[in-house]
Order: sequence, then structure tokens, then C-alpha cells
Amino acid sequence: MQYGHFDDARREYVIETPATPLPWINYLGNEDFFSLISNTAGGYSFYKDAKLRRITRYRYNGVPADEGARSFYLTLMEPTDGAADPMDDAALKPVASWSPTFLPLKTPLDSYECRHGMGYSIFRASYAGIDSELTAFVPLHTPAEINKITLTNTNDAERIVDVTACVEWCLWNAVDDASNFQRNLSTGEVEIEQNDDATLIYHKTEFKERRNHYAFYSVNEPTVGYDTVRDEFLGKFNGWDSPQVIAEGRAHDSVAYGWSPIAAPRVRVRLMPGQSTSLVFMLGYIEVADDEKWEDPNDPAKVGIINKKPAHELFARFDTVEKVDVAFDELKGYWASLLDGFQVRTGDDKLDRMVNIWNQYQCMVTFNLSRSASYYESGMGRGMGFRDSNQDLLGFVHMIPERARDRIIDIASTQLPDGSAWHQYQPLTKQGNADIGGGFNDDPLWLVASVFAYLNETGDDSILRTPAQFDNKEGSEQPLLEHLRRSVRFTMSHRGPHGLPLIGRADWNDCLNLNCFSSTPGESFQTVENNDTGIAESVFIAGMFVLYGEQYAQILERFGEACGMDGDAVRAEVADVRKAVAEVRDATLDAGWDGAWFRRAYDANGNAVGTAEDSEGRIYIEPQGMCVMAGIGVDDGRAAQALASTKELFTCRWGTAILAPAYSTYRIELGEISSYPRGYKENGGIFCHNNPWISIANAIIGDDDEAFAVYTRTCPAYTEEFSQIHRTEPYVYCQMVAGPESHAPGEGKNSWLTGTAAWTFVDVSQYLLGVRPTFDGLRIDPHMPAEFTELHIERSWRGTRYIIDVTRTGERSLSVDGKKVDGDIVPLAAAGAKEVQVTLTI
Amino acid sequence: MQYGHFDDARREYVIETPATPLPWINYLGNEDFFSLISNTAGGYSFYKDAKLRRITRYRYNGVPADEGARSFYLTLMEPTDGAADPMDDAALKPVASWSPTFLPLKTPLDSYECRHGMGYSIFRASYAGIDSELTAFVPLHTPAEINKITLTNTNDAERIVDVTACVEWCLWNAVDDASNFQRNLSTGEVEIEQNDDATLIYHKTEFKERRNHYAFYSVNEPTVGYDTVRDEFLGKFNGWDSPQVIAEGRAHDSVAYGWSPIAAPRVRVRLMPGQSTSLVFMLGYIEVADDEKWEDPNDPAKVGIINKKPAHELFARFDTVEKVDVAFDELKGYWASLLDGFQVRTGDDKLDRMVNIWNQYQCMVTFNLSRSASYYESGMGRGMGFRDSNQDLLGFVHMIPERARDRIIDIASTQLPDGSAWHQYQPLTKQGNADIGGGFNDDPLWLVASVFAYLNETGDDSILRTPAQFDNKEGSEQPLLEHLRRSVRFTMSHRGPHGLPLIGRADWNDCLNLNCFSSTPGESFQTVENNDTGIAESVFIAGMFVLYGEQYAQILERFGEACGMDGDAVRAEVADVRKAVAEVRDATLDAGWDGAWFRRAYDANGNAVGTAEDSEGRIYIEPQGMCVMAGIGVDDGRAAQALASTKELFTCRWGTAILAPAYSTYRIELGEISSYPRGYKENGGIFCHNNPWISIANAIIGDDDEAFAVYTRTCPAYTEEFSQIHRTEPYVYCQMVAGPESHAPGEGKNSWLTGTAAWTFVDVSQYLLGVRPTFDGLRIDPHMPAEFTELHIERSWRGTRYIIDVTRTGERSLSVDGKKVDGDIVPLAAAGAKEVQVTLTI
Repeated sequence: MQYGHFDDARREYVIETPATPLPWINYLGNEDFFSLISNTAGGYSFYKDAKLRRITRYRYNGVPADEGARSFYLTLMEPTDGAADPMDDAALKPVASWSPTFLPLKTPLDSYECRHGMGYSIFRASYAGIDSELTAFVPLHTPAEINKITLTNTNDAERIVDVTACVEWCLWNAVDDASNFQRNLSTGEVEIEQNDDATLIYHKTEFKERRNHYAFYSVNEPTVGYDTVRDEFLGKFNGWDSPQVIAEGRAHDSVAYGWSPIAAPRVRVRLMPGQSTSLVFMLGYIEVADDEKWEDPNDPAKVGIINKKPAHELFARFDTVEKVDVAFDELKGYWASLLDGFQVRTGDDKLDRMVNIWNQYQCMVTFNLSRSASYYESGMGRGMGFRDSNQDLLGFVHMIPERARDRIIDIASTQLPDGSAWHQYQPLTKQGNADIGGGFNDDPLWLVASVFAYLNETGDDSILRTPAQFDNKEGSEQPLLEHLRRSVRFTMSHRGPHGLPLIGRADWNDCLNLNCFSSTPGESFQTVENNDTGIAESVFIAGMFVLYGEQYAQILERFGEACGMDGDAVRAEVADVRKAVAEVRDATLDAGWDGAWFRRAYDANGNAVGTAEDSEGRIYIEPQGMCVMAGIGVDDGRAAQALASTKELFTCRWGTAILAPAYSTYRIELGEISSYPRGYKENGGIFCHNNPWISIANAIIGDDDEAFAVYTRTCPAYTEEFSQIHRTEPYVYCQMVAGPESHAPGEGKNSWLTGTAAWTFVDVSQYLLGVRPTFDGLRIDPHMPAEFTELHIERSWRGTRYIIDVTRTGERSLSVDGKKVDGDIVPLAAAGAKEVQVTLTI
Repeated sequence: MQYGHFDDARREYVIETPATPLPWINYLGNEDFFSLISNTAGGYSFYKDAKLRRITRYRYNGVPADEGARSFYLTLMEPTDGAADPMDDAALKPVASWSPTFLPLKTPLDSYECRHGMGYSIFRASYAGIDSELTAFVPLHTPAEINKITLTNTNDAERIVDVTACVEWCLWNAVDDASNFQRNLSTGEVEIEQNDDATLIYHKTEFKERRNHYAFYSVNEPTVGYDTVRDEFLGKFNGWDSPQVIAEGRAHDSVAYGWSPIAAPRVRVRLMPGQSTSLVFMLGYIEVADDEKWEDPNDPAKVGIINKKPAHELFARFDTVEKVDVAFDELKGYWASLLDGFQVRTGDDKLDRMVNIWNQYQCMVTFNLSRSASYYESGMGRGMGFRDSNQDLLGFVHMIPERARDRIIDIASTQLPDGSAWHQYQPLTKQGNADIGGGFNDDPLWLVASVFAYLNETGDDSILRTPAQFDNKEGSEQPLLEHLRRSVRFTMSHRGPHGLPLIGRADWNDCLNLNCFSSTPGESFQTVENNDTGIAESVFIAGMFVLYGEQYAQILERFGEACGMDGDAVRAEVADVRKAVAEVRDATLDAGWDGAWFRRAYDANGNAVGTAEDSEGRIYIEPQGMCVMAGIGVDDGRAAQALASTKELFTCRWGTAILAPAYSTYRIELGEISSYPRGYKENGGIFCHNNPWISIANAIIGDDDEAFAVYTRTCPAYTEEFSQIHRTEPYVYCQMVAGPESHAPGEGKNSWLTGTAAWTFVDVSQYLLGVRPTFDGLRIDPHMPAEFTELHIERSWRGTRYIIDVTRTGERSLSVDGKKVDGDIVPLAAAGAKEVQVTLTI
């Protein structure tokens, strides 16, 4: 069952009902100011950091759900009976109210549609003969969300419509805002500027003290009133679905001191038959220098009144519909040009729309937000993940390499001097998160993966010479290449009794905690090591090391001398690393091989994890994917055998589970993985993130049908028709789908912020469609099922447009601009070449 | 304006409308299992620790407010039109629904009343001719909340009423429950046991792994259905005010896997005219040993099914109305006996009800909960405060000295070896809270205060010889007397340039942060010391040291030798301490005196704080109270002058503000105190906590009229008539009342959990009424205004009942059992004496 449809021409998903199984959301904003927005306009906004600079308040787990941060109320007003003058505002009464986004008022609408597009959402509704169109977006390079609403009177008589918009302020720190009420309820402060032609309501809580930022909510037309006191707006016992001021038909002009400040301006619109009018509401964020905080710092009477000049300037940039429309077109143009870097026509609409639009779009969102703020990640805890952000970059680097470059330096700067890493850092401060710490032994190797991808994409080896701090300490700067060296050396020097890398607190699977041994409820599985015997090893990290150790060696060979190493030093380092890679590869084939698949790990007692000798957790997905991607066992049939076992033992219609059988009891020696109910999360759920590894692995061993089948099982466009089961958005990936052993197989959770986006884009673009950048050129090596007979791919790469046509003829040949080329690599085009025509037959 | 009235005979406050200005709450539970319950039955339950063992879910700052944790729905059912058999359940339809507690359904009731009593709350309502009475309480020595509901049909025909009760489970850790949704939404698990005569719904989330506890919700009658899936119960878009199953008139028998588990059994009641029936709902908490978690640990099929035996046993204790009524009577008897220890008749009903009932009751609540869980303290952060709990004990020690003794040892065990202390500890683990740490230099001296009070109350000097750990480390045990020595020595060895004690991070006023110098938003004022120059001093701690240093000396003189010290050692230690006390007293009179009041502190630059030389923050309340209580300046008129300044400069109808004038700008050298809006919280709010210090101080200098006036200004019974201004409960103290410089003077906040309860009880019982235990006897020294001509006081003390009659004659004389006694101390009665008659004329 579907709740909407794709509109590929507009790059939109069109939701046809407010009653989606779960709120289906979109993200607004590309740089610093971000908003989440659902198909009923729920969500919230923040600046850079969802924890430390939360602008509007959102209640995760609210009842009723998904209300309050961004509310619109339309009220049809009519003269009271016997009113002397029908133009007299005081003689008007409310006769009907509705929300143009359905929530919060829940008035059944005559029509409803939500279009989630690239960085914007449009809500169309009609009720009582009033058509409404609400467009929400964050303009480029702007710390503000614009909500333009257009009303059209389709009745044959004049209508008076009051438009009340409301945002609830978060008191900046999202954690304190939701917990420290003994303080919070006394701190809220606002200012109100009700001008003849516009109203601006300022939120200045804590501005008096250490904050150099405030927010405002404005409308570009005169208002008939406003409210800033939530309890006054709602009235006693009421929710967002029944505010007192809406029932009464008038604002209270309330001024907040403490408690819960809101901003709710009210505009009155008179519409003749057929007439349309538009209002522009804006939620803006302003930072000022310390010495420019006050209206007049030298006038004691004006200390305490905020300096509104920068707010006025921001307001003026969008104070007409025309200015807003220009900004909206700029945003659309920006996204068209971003997505244009990789476009494909395959004959399969689902595949095309995912590759051309939604997968790339989700890659941008995960790059921006890591795992911080979604409808499942509350934005209160996790900031940017070291592991996460390096992987996210793999799917984003082709879109804006410059931002990827900056991100790599940010990430590297949180690396610790011994090569290990802070597991997370706050995007605002860029400091490592001490609550979580480090000790996740896969972390450092992901830095190699992202840098290798960046170098392939751009060829810009200057990044290797760019200094980056360790542990964000001034004076600790070393060139990025040195960071890579320490990453690789960390694994080399942390190996266990079987010659496999030590796992530390956990590897990619945060829930496989082999040194934790926790028996205390609530104790963090991630940060506690009650029994670190120093021998727990990870076969997964072994696969990573073989893959990324080799990438590091290739970086050295290619760029080492350009980075100031002499040839001997390069050769010595490369030899060292390749020797270690060979050792780890051998150890993987020896202690890491279980007979029909790769084992997962060895625990703190030296026992194998992920083995047929166990009754549960006999096979895990991660090593099957990573080891084959690293080439281990590809030449001796073991890779094929591992993938056959994977397909047979724990793959269902919805994908491949993370392990099987799921654990029925808590195993103290394994940690959190065994804590979940069977079939959920790391205990047998389908982690979409590592399904593409299996797809890539199948492509590597040449099983193109299974490679594509793996791709489609978790791909939203292909599961759209099962939305009533899948429940999450059919246009983006979710982190986890309930596994075959669960109560509700196929039910998705934790949509949007998942490494699935990046890895699937790597899979589909580089392996299935087979267009992979290398140091020397663009490798073209598709692995699509036989029914795909023609592929048209356009790829912008290092300033040149590669126009690639693949035809299935049964015979492999490659030509570039009409000239035949050996192998599968299209050489880097000559400098200045705008376009290269590539023809491949397979 | 009042919203209810006191019913002194029943020891209840009777709330006459659901529409109180704020939810007015009560606490259920005296030992380990606690519930908060508002006048519309909002609130939540927890076991020992509101953060780590939260049983039901509560949304602080929910919209609509105060719903969801404990919901009752009554539905009048009628046969559908043309139903063949009116007794056929399937042929019934709902015709009206209401909540017997008004919320969440909000159906206007024909009558409503909420009676908050001692550890219980009763809700009476009527609607559609059905009278309901719901009694909520936690039985003594029982980890469960009982909700007995009695329905009476006052119609002249039969009625069928469906009773649906609903609790929403918190997934145990209140912080994770409100933030870690990417995990939470996959972990929820329940079991359902629908028997012929009862239904029990078990909440077993995480029981599989490390938890040894589960909860259940039961009803002692057969059910017609149940729900455990919140979203199924509520339906799409609905709140607690409009559940789908209530609208439909039937339960869905839903079974929760993940998402948000609830327990909502539904019982059908058929009532003949005039007939009554009662149901018993129970919310129980169960702990089991690790090897008794499962129904049958040896049967693999039964691993995963929880061992319900202990739940059945608990259920059986309250499975009939008769058993519940017995338990309820036991609870009432328990409270009658507890309160009986101090009873007074003064001719002033307001005074009597506060002393005899509500002040003592609040003292119990603050003793139990410190500052952890109220409608303002979210129970997520603060556990037991070192400073707080020592002070809370001052008002509680006369009620259950044995529990006070245990608490003192718990507190002392979190002291650090150098005499300083962890500022807070978690009640469940009793470990110091590392997030906050220590460094609050008043903390250690409060331990002297509580031990001195305990010794006066009980004479039990064995506590001084009882070993207590330092920093909860095994092997670090030292007798409690050694803890006191280190407390006092800590202050002696931490004095600044003026000879005054160093303040550390803060003293009693957590917001006076003289070493903090924070310019980073959100940085904790309490834990950061950016500029600790080592010289910031506190005049308040100076007063404390003079007061409690002397108490320590008296403890030594009295009990030192009994604790194994030889006489010389006692004398040497006492001399040392008294010498330091004299030095600090002199320093206070010198550098601590501003000319017309005591100064507050010296900041990190050596500048005075709380001085007429400043433009704001010229006078603070704390040193005026504490220094005079310590006797400083009493003999030379400076005490009187300080109190006159206090009355004149920052006392209003609602009490004395914490400082004046309030700070209009942020002062980095003062910290959080200057961060609040003017007139709120520590920036000029009225802190009820330190108003009794001023009352005591006035009693000490003999201004009895002002002493009593101070008492009444903040006393709830005296402000009841201004409830529309005060807004918080008129039967308990709140932490803070908005000050004269605020936007809303007189508006209370942060009710219930405040040291005000204990300090006011000390004030009114020991100073105003003047009955104060000493080592040698009961001092009787009332300081009441002249209009109080007769006082009758009964006080149980060390096993004897002292019946005290005070008559104002103009001549002072004291007689005990008819015999005249010199001075004002009634000597300790002979062992075994049941009763002593005391007659005092003044």
C-alpha cells in the first residue's frame, strides 16, 4: 500500500494523506541552519548543533505526536450578528478554523497534499473554499526558515481569514530545556516589535548573560495581535489542537516572562472572490559581537534591549513575495546542479529516481547531520561520529568536494596522538565528546577510507600535506598523511593472539562489546570495560585493515614523495604495511574462517563469535561483506561460499539480517548485541548499512543478479508499495528493518540518518552501475543483471562531463571519444575538456 | 482567591476544581516506592530513584500538560439499537465517557473534588448519575500504588459502566527514556496474564538482560479486554483526551513489541439502581534474584517468561476491597502517630494546621526525596544533595530518628577524605555524582548541623562511634566523629586573605560562583572554575562556621571521652576549634561588616560583594540570617541593625528577597546569580529557604513581632487566599516566590522540594513556639507576638510526652509536674516516664 507517489520531474515525493504510518519528514537547510519538517509540518530548527543551539522546541514522544514547533491556524471570520459595521474588526467572530498542514487542528480538509522536495516542502490544502499553499525552505546561505503561505478565495463572495502562525521557543540547550525546569521556568524572555507593516517577535532568553545569539519570528504584513505566552495562547487544559485564542478568534497580546515563551503573530486577510494573497513568515537566527549586543551600550536605559539591526537586515532580504520566490528558485537551481553530477537512465524508474535524486539527497543530509537529529535521534546526545562521518563522506564527496575536504580535516583533528580517536564530536565546538570517549578500534581506519575516496574524486593531494591537530590541541598539528600513518599503525600494533586486530570497546557494530561484561542495569555498554583481557579480536576490522591498509599503501606510492618522503621511506613504509596486510589476510583465512563463512570475532575468553559451533549468533553479516570487499577468499572460492551462506541462512524478502539466529538470552561476554528482543536492532534486525557491502561483495565475485537483488531488497523505491509494513519514508533509507525473527518483519525504524545512504550510493554508482573514480581515470565496470541492456550515465568528474553509454552486446569493448581503450579505465581527460563520450559494450 | 480549603480534622486539603492555577500535587509513599499525583491524577511512580528506576512515563512540559501516566476512563455502555440480547457484550455501544479525575477526558463533571491527605489522594466525582470515588495510596512497606475505585449508580435504572485504566511504562532510565529513541523504540516488552478473576499486565523491558526487576499493573476483577500498545490505544493523531478504544467502546487486546508499551485493562461493571461496586487497580514493582528471573530456568521454552510468583504474592495482598481498606487505615494510623510527636493549639488555625500537619508532612517528603522529583525537578538530574539532605533532616529528625540516623551515615559516606564532599549522590547507588563533583565549601559544615540535631533529639551518641566510609570506598571507614572533625578542619584550613572561609565553587547559594568567570553559553556555572584565584571568601560560611564550629565543640565536650578521646585531647581540640571560631567571628565583624548589614562575600579580585558601595546586589539575605543565628553582633547592636536593614531594604508582602537591587547585567565575576531576569530565582527572587533564618534571627534579638511576621509572609496557609497570585499549592512551601523587582511579584515556583520545609519547622517549633531539644533537656522559650496569650504544645521526646502550657502573664516562671524550675530548660524526664506536665508563664 502506498500513501503517495514520486514526482520525478519535480524531484518530489508527493504524500497524499496526513495519515502516513509514521510522520514522514524532510530536511531544510544545507549549511548551518537546519529544520526538520514532517508531512504535517512537525519538527524543529537548530543552528549548527541540535543540542547546543536548538531554536524551536520539539517533544519527541509527545502525545499527541509531532506537534507544536511550527503550527498554522486559519480561521474564517464573519461579522457577529447585527454588527453595525462589517468592516469593524471588533465585530468579527470565528466561524471555522483549520490547519493548512492538517495538524495540529485536525480539521478534515477538502484536499491535502505534501510535497517533499530537495530542501523544501510544500503543503497544499483547501477548506471552506480557501485554497492554501505553504512553502517551507531555508534559503541558501541564510540562517532562517521561510514559510510562505498563499491563500486563494475560490468562493463567490468575500472572505475574511485570520492567519495565526506559532512557533514555540526552545531555551537553546535541548537537554536543559527538557530537564532543568526549576531553572528554565524563570528564564524565558522576549521582545515584541509590532510595526505598521510587519511584526517581529524576538526570543532573547539568556541573551543577557553569555549568549551572543537570539532568534526571531516575523511576518511581513501588519498583525491584528500576537501572543508570546504559551499557556495564554493555549488556555487551560488545551493542546495545540485547540488553542483558546483560536476558539476566541482573537490574540491576547501576551508578553512572556519565564515559563514557556512562544511567538504567535496573527494576520487578518480580506480576500475578494478569486483573489490570492501571500504572507511571508520567517524564523531567523542572529549572532552579534559581544560589544554589539545592546541597542545602545552607552545608554543604561537601553542595556537589556537587544540590537535588532542584524535582524532587520535579515528580515529585509525576504520581506516580499518576489524576494522569496527568487530565493526559492535559487535553491532549486542549486540542487539541480548538485544532483547533475551523477545522472543515469537505466529503463528502471525506481533505480533512476533513487540514484538521480533521493539517494544523493540523503547522502547530503547524512553528511550534514551525521547521526545527530532525526525523528529517532533526539539531537541531545550524539554529535558527529568519527566512524559515521568518514563513511557518510563516501557518498557525498562527488557533490561538493570542498566541503568534504573541510570535514576530513575536522574529523582528523579529533584523532588522538596514538592514532585512535574520539568516537564523537560536537559540531558546534568540534571538540571530542568525553562522555563517550574513544577505544572503538575500527574508527581510525575509516579515515583512510574517506581520504582515499577524496583523492580518487579530486586528485587533490594537497590535503595530505594539510596540517591537522591531534585531540584539537593547538601546537599538535601534523600533515594529514601523518594522521593516516598513525591510523594504520594503530591497527598494526593492536593485534591479538590470532593475529587479528583487537576490537577495543567495539568495532562498526557498537553493540558487540567483548570487554564490557556488564551486569549493572543502565551501565553504558559502549564506555564500560569490566573485563578487558586484552585478547578480544575482530574479524571485521581484519577485513577493514586488508582493504584500507592497502588503500593507504596506494596513497603512499602515489603521493608519498609529493608529501616530502623520499623514495626509500615510501618503499619501506609500503612494504611494512603490505606485510602486515598479508599477515592479517592470512589470519583471517585461518582463524577468521569458520568453514562456510567468515567468523565475526574472538571474545575476551578466546572463544569464536559467529561460528557454526554456537547455537545462536552463528553467522554475522559484517565480516562476509567487508572481507570479500577486501578481496579475501575471492580467489579460492571462500568468498563465494560466504556469500552463498549469507543468502541462504539469514536473508529474507526485506534484506539480510545482521546475524542469525538471534540471541534469546543475554550473553554477558557479548554485550548489548544480545540485549535486544530477537529480530530487532543488532540482535537480528536487518541493518541496511551493511546490506550494500553484501551487494558490492556479490558484484566483486561476479554474481550480478544477487548483487542487484540485495540492492533492491532494502531500497525504498522498491519497497514503496509495502509502506503499510515498512512504515518509514519510501524515499529514504532507514537504519534498521525488523528482521525475519522479529514480531513484525519488514517494519523500518530510524530512518534518514544512517550510513546506508553513503554505502548504497557507493554500491549502486561504483559497483552496480560501475562508475568508479581512481587516481588515473574513471573505471567503468557495470554489474547489472542481464535484463538491463542499455545504461546511459552522465558523471561530472574533475571538471569534465563523462557521458557514458553502456550496451549489452555480449562482447566487452570500451571506447573514449570514439577511440578504443584497453581495460576498463577511461583515462583522465585533458585539462579543460568539457565533455568526454564513453561507449562501453558488455 | 481560593481553589479549595483545608479540612484539618481529616488532615486533608480539599481542592474544589480541576482548574487550579498549576497542577497541585501530592506524594504517595514513605520508603522506597514513590508516586507523584496531581489534583487531576497526573504524575508518575518510581522505586527509590526517579532517574534510574522510573516506573511510569511522565512528560514534563507536555502539551496538553500533566497527562498520561495514570489515566482513568469511565464509559457508559448501552445496548445497540435493536440488539437481540441486552446482556450480549458484543451488542453494547458507548454513549458517554468521562474521567473520574477530570483529566484526561475533560468531560465537564457534575461534581468534582480532590482531597490530598497524608500519603493518599481521593478523587470524588459524579457524572451521568454515576458517583465515583478513587483512592490512591502506597501501602506501608509495599512497593506498589493502589488505586481503588468505587462506583455507585444513583440512577433509577441499571447502568453498564466500562472502567478502563491506563498507565504508560517508562523504560526504566528516565533520561534514556526521553532521549535515546533509536534504541528505545525497539526494546519494549510485555507479558499479559488474563485470568478468569483478574488481569495482570507485566512490563519486562530489559528484564532479559541486566535488570532484575519488572513492574506490573493489575485489576482484581475479570476484564473484557486490554491494550498494551499505546498507538493502538490512542489511535492516529489522538491524545490521552480522545483514545480510539474509548470512542469505539472496546479494547483491541494489543500486544506491545517495542515502541511505547502501556497497560490498559478494561473492566465491565453492571450496577443496579443504588448499587455500589469497587475495583482495585495496582501498579507493582518486583525485584527477583538473578537465578529466579525465569518461570523455569531449566526449561529452554520457558526462559524468557518471567517468574510471576512474587507478583502474584504482592497482588494477593491487595486483591480484595477489604484488604485494601485495612491497608489504608494502617497508613492513616501511621501518619496520625507520626504527626502526634509535635502538636500545638495556639488559637490560630493557620498556624496550627501548618505545624500539626502540613509542615511536618512536607518535611517527610523532602527528607525522602531531597531535590530529586517534583513537578519542577524532573528526577533526571539531581539525586540527594549533601547540603540539602543534612538540612532536610533538621525538620524530620523528631519524626523517625532511626531513619535520620541511617541517612546521616549515608551522607557521611560520600564525604571525601579531605573533609570536603560530593555535592550530590544517587539514592539507588549511594555513590557521589561525578558530573557535579565537589568543591562547595559550605557542604561539610552542614553535616555538623544534622549530627548536632540528631544528638539533641535522641541523645544517642553511639552514632559518633559508628564507622562511615569516605568516598564510599571500602576500607576507608572512620567513626562519624572523625567525619565531623574533618568537616570543621576543612573550613579552618581553607580561609582567605580576610580570614574568612574560602567559598570554593559556591556556598549555600549555588549561583554565587566567584571563581567561575564563564563566558561560554551553557557552561555549567557550578562545575567550571575558569579563574580560581584562591582568595574568594564567603561571609555566609563564616557565620556557619561560628555556629556549627561551636556545635562541634559542644559535641566534643559532651561526648568526646565517650568516643575514646582522652580528656586532654578533647580540651585541645575544643580550644583549637574555639580559637578558630573566635578568629572567624572577628573577621566577620571586621571585613564581613558593611556598616549597616553583613556583607556577602569577597570575589576573586578581592572586591566586596553585598556592599553599599555597589550599585546593585548591595545587600544579600543569607549572611544577615546566618551570622545572627550564630550570635555574631547580637551583643553590640549590629545584629539588630542588619535585621532592620533587611526589613527596610528588600522585604515585601511576599517575603524578603535574596538580594537587592537585582542585577540588571551579567557580572562574570559573580556567575549565575546575575544570569536570571531581575526578581527571579537567585537574582532577587524571594527564596523561602532563608526567610526562616531571618525569623529565627529576629527571635534571637527579641523582635518577636517581626519574627512571626517573617514566618507568615511565606507561609502557605497565610497566603492561601492569594492563590491566584501565588499559583502553587497552598499547603506546602515553594522554593522561590517572584520578588518585588520581578514582573509578577508573589508568583511561586518550584513547590515541595525545598529546604524551606525543614528550616521553617525548626523556626516555628524551636524558636517561635520555642520548644528546643538540648543535650540536657527541653528548652522552652517561646517568641510569639503578644496577641498569642495561650499556647498548648505536646511534644514527644526521648520516649516521654511533654505537655506544655504557656500562658502570657507578664512574669516568667517555669514549672515541671508542678515543681518550679530555674531557667528555661525542662530537665530530661526520668527513664520510663510517660508524661511530663510543663507550665510556663511569660
